[in-house]
Amino acid sequence: MNNFTFHNPVRLLFGAGQIAALSREVPRGAKVLMTFGGGSIKVNGVYDQVRKALIDFEVIEFGGIEPNPTFETLMRAVEVVRKENVEFLLAVGGGSVLDGTKFISAAAKFEGDPWSLLTRRMPVKAAVPYGTVLTLPATGSEMNANAVVSRQVTQEKLAFGSPLLFPKFSIVDPETTYSLPPRQIANGVVDAFVHVAEQYLTTPSKAPLQDRFAESILRTLIEDGPKTLANPMDYEARSSVVWCATMALNGLIGCGVPQDWSTHMIGHELTAFHGLDHAQTLAIILPNLLWVQRETKHEKLLQYAGRVWDIKEGNDATRLEQAIIRTRGFFESMGNPTHLSDYAVGSEHFEEIVARLESRKMLPMGERKNLDAEKVREVLALAR
Amino acid sequence: MNNFTFHNPVRLLFGAGQIAALSREVPRGAKVLMTFGGGSIKVNGVYDQVRKALIDFEVIEFGGIEPNPTFETLMRAVEVVRKENVEFLLAVGGGSVLDGTKFISAAAKFEGDPWSLLTRRMPVKAAVPYGTVLTLPATGSEMNANAVVSRQVTQEKLAFGSPLLFPKFSIVDPETTYSLPPRQIANGVVDAFVHVAEQYLTTPSKAPLQDRFAESILRTLIEDGPKTLANPMDYEARSSVVWCATMALNGLIGCGVPQDWSTHMIGHELTAFHGLDHAQTLAIILPNLLWVQRETKHEKLLQYAGRVWDIKEGNDATRLEQAIIRTRGFFESMGNPTHLSDYAVGSEHFEEIVARLESRKMLPMGERKNLDAEKVREVLALAR
Repeated sequence: MNNFTFHNPVRLLFGAGQIAALSREVPRGAKVLMTFGGGSIKVNGVYDQVRKALIDFEVIEFGGIEPNPTFETLMRAVEVVRKENVEFLLAVGGGSVLDGTKFISAAAKFEGDPWSLLTRRMPVKAAVPYGTVLTLPATGSEMNANAVVSRQVTQEKLAFGSPLLFPKFSIVDPETTYSLPPRQIANGVVDAFVHVAEQYLTTPSKAPLQDRFAESILRTLIEDGPKTLANPMDYEARSSVVWCATMALNGLIGCGVPQDWSTHMIGHELTAFHGLDHAQTLAIILPNLLWVQRETKHEKLLQYAGRVWDIKEGNDATRLEQAIIRTRGFFESMGNPTHLSDYAVGSEHFEEIVARLESRKMLPMGERKNLDAEKVREVLALAR
Repeated sequence: MNNFTFHNPVRLLFGAGQIAALSREVPRGAKVLMTFGGGSIKVNGVYDQVRKALIDFEVIEFGGIEPNPTFETLMRAVEVVRKENVEFLLAVGGGSVLDGTKFISAAAKFEGDPWSLLTRRMPVKAAVPYGTVLTLPATGSEMNANAVVSRQVTQEKLAFGSPLLFPKFSIVDPETTYSLPPRQIANGVVDAFVHVAEQYLTTPSKAPLQDRFAESILRTLIEDGPKTLANPMDYEARSSVVWCATMALNGLIGCGVPQDWSTHMIGHELTAFHGLDHAQTLAIILPNLLWVQRETKHEKLLQYAGRVWDIKEGNDATRLEQAIIRTRGFFESMGNPTHLSDYAVGSEHFEEIVARLESRKMLPMGERKNLDAEKVREVLALAR
């Protein structure tokens, strides 16, 4: 096990009916900016629950944060925060609203061009405190201090983070996710699955408990993902999947182990160029990347085959291949195709994608820094 | 899964050499009271590492905190904190030193008789901030806000806790535990194991991820416990066991599930009356309590048999019995006997123990509140 520091101060309130707790979680007397997305919260009752809980607060609303939130939209919220002296942000929505709100939180206190928080990874020195009400399980944003933001004009999608950007609290009520369309639930399951894979399917690192925790999340997603897709209002399966998504990316399973994240980096570019959902890109890239990296990830893939998929028969090569086939099959069974052609996307931007990763000095990538331009091309070619 | 709130703000620094980080973790300029136990830290080099890291701080020392720390000793430290205007406490040691320091932290700011924090469970309204350097893996005290304190004069051992009593940081360097005697390592493994059992071997609660996390810790302890006993300086096995002990009682696996803690409650009385180590009492009580509660815990015991011990053969009764036999065997293989007679302790205080639990209104206990006086007698009789 490598040395590590683990620190996650988020206060997580989980379960049906927890939104009512907002009245005591938001700092008394604070002027609040409530951020949200396209308005689904007004249809599913979440908006009403939140406003009811905040009846005694001064609340300004900022809706319209889009999936893959854009710098352009978020900067308009930053203007509101500055002009209205907002003291607390409340993000109500999925990962995009939460990530966007993290950017608003940092940008509102940033001196200089906030875009440099992303492009030049300038450190966050101050942030407007915020809480979240999660309505879409997937990104784990409710319990971490990272965010991904896009810029329309340049078709870029970039990540940033800071220890100052943990939510003060997050409210996760699985019932608020009942009305989500199947596509978003499928995306959530795939996203959580791949978050775990990025931290687990790497090189052996003598961290047996982290391995088992990762395997625990994967097995639970495999078990309860299809159940919650089939029966959206089954609280048991839904709460299980929602909790898995939070635990997949709150820092715990990544303690003291190598991490990959190549699938995410390539996937971000597919979203930037083609507008595919984040999880759609992950389902397309991961199985192919595992295949291309099968030598590098050999030992962990075999452990994964045995412990997650119960594949015990056959020689190493067979079991390894079967594990990748099962992974692909799981994504497809959840309704997430694993080829670009399923979305009528061709190879027209492959070279641009490679060039972008190179220009950002991200290559070679992966836990062993051996996924170079040639291998990225190989992954993309297999993903067609 | 039941509703829950999870909040654990402890900053955990894990790994070899992390004590040097004290210089930036302790608030700059703070007057520090360093608390420790019987002086083993002066033999194993930890004392020197700590003092070196704190070279620029004003440090007052308070040694002599005993195993099962006593109110009497701790109140002397409280006097020092008040008289010297200490601003930060640094606990260096095992669970007893850490628990004792939590009491010092709360008692120093308490108005009235601090013993009422324990007997009357008075709420903690303020606390002196503190950090810890853990040198003995077992109690999980480094990452929770609970403590157990004894009173010599009345032979009582009582628990308390408060959200204000989380350490600001904890430094966990597995190498500092290399010099521990085998008995303390065995105790640590048993303690962590039983902490998990109290949160897992209860009633089914539709929390599959928590179940798997609990099983992950148990399997890892079963795998690495004997290894670290055999090879104390094997960093891999030792760091694994130390990390398991932290994760066993930092609140995570207990989220949204019923909890038992009867074994601890009965065990505390055995320590109070007979001076047995905490973990020794747990090893004695748990297997017998599981047997007495085998109907109540039926489903979970069968799950435990299959998933933790790989017991697949035989009917329900056989597998359940085998799981309890394997549990007992594991404790004994770690060097922890499972009968009172192994410590030359008889049944002379059994009735007093029952009477005490009754007088504190703790009976009936357990996740279904069905462990009554009669069953406590049954557990104790089997434990002879």
